[in-house]
Amino acid sequence: MLRRDRQTTSSKELGETLGYTDAQVRKDLAYFGQFGHPGIGYRVDELIARVRCILGTDRTWNVLIAGAGNLGQALASYRGFARKGFQIVAVLDNDPARIGQPIGFVPGMKVLPMDRLPQVVAEHHVQIGIITVPAEVAQPVADAMVKAGIHGILNFAPAALSLQDDTAVASVSLAVHLEQLAFGIKARQETAQEAQ
Amino acid sequence: MLRRDRQTTSSKELGETLGYTDAQVRKDLAYFGQFGHPGIGYRVDELIARVRCILGTDRTWNVLIAGAGNLGQALASYRGFARKGFQIVAVLDNDPARIGQPIGFVPGMKVLPMDRLPQVVAEHHVQIGIITVPAEVAQPVADAMVKAGIHGILNFAPAALSLQDDTAVASVSLAVHLEQLAFGIKARQETAQEAQ
Repeated sequence: MLRRDRQTTSSKELGETLGYTDAQVRKDLAYFGQFGHPGIGYRVDELIARVRCILGTDRTWNVLIAGAGNLGQALASYRGFARKGFQIVAVLDNDPARIGQPIGFVPGMKVLPMDRLPQVVAEHHVQIGIITVPAEVAQPVADAMVKAGIHGILNFAPAALSLQDDTAVASVSLAVHLEQLAFGIKARQETAQEAQ
Repeated sequence: MLRRDRQTTSSKELGETLGYTDAQVRKDLAYFGQFGHPGIGYRVDELIARVRCILGTDRTWNVLIAGAGNLGQALASYRGFARKGFQIVAVLDNDPARIGQPIGFVPGMKVLPMDRLPQVVAEHHVQIGIITVPAEVAQPVADAMVKAGIHGILNFAPAALSLQDDTAVASVSLAVHLEQLAFGIKARQETAQEAQ
């Protein structure tokens, strides 16, 4: 909206964009305090600043990626992270053929050996680790991350991680998204058949 | 469980693995019918077969990927899809430097020009399209997919797609996962500080 020079918005417009009702938008925001202005609605810049503050993305988070395979490379090259305040500071791998190879879009960044993890975390104050290693080694890599001082893990490996509650973990299962789609397609086809 | 030779399970064990309560597991399954056996619990093979049937993954779905950049390459090489019944049959791109390049793990698969989309969909009965093109072109690519007969779209581009209700759409926002993590880390730190 800011890019389109929009100064204010409404819960109705936000809801339409996000796929929620305006009541849900108001309810969700109210959970965090008072946002709108009577007769004006929401000021877009203020809303962005406050949501960033709530999420904790009003600062920069240093992130490392463990696993320099296709997915690790894709994530290292994804410019959308930096725009949201997530800085990929290092990519690590165990494979001698990958170590030392250039990676990502930052000139000079090269894949580091996995045993440099504690040093990288300490030097760059890394708080978030992304796991793109094979499922078999995801747990030891996660354990090493936590031991090195990482507080949050984004896990792309198809393996359930077992970690203490003081580490935030989010898992991205690519196949699950396709399963949800398959279910959505099937449900639509069944509805269409019933309508006939 | 099957791989570990387990024949039966319980809602308690399923809940612990999935991070839900056993009551929630029972409630969710009950929505789709009768699953357990008195005194036995759930038969693992039967449960897998029935959940697959519910999701529609008891058959093979043909999938194409639009966009052969890093992420498209990563997804084309991801073996977890085929294991769940999703077959990547083609990867398309507009970039002459990418067209004709080998991609994925199936020998002989090469990146096809984007204008082959309708032909690929018809020949392979493709029902699902994955979008890994830049945000600016995600909408026209989605429109082309729907026009060609695709029923479900998995969108990795950071752009909201506007499509008719009869197309199933799932969007994966990589940055949102990191934002959720940042929020989780922040919440834990605040709780820890309050506890002091």
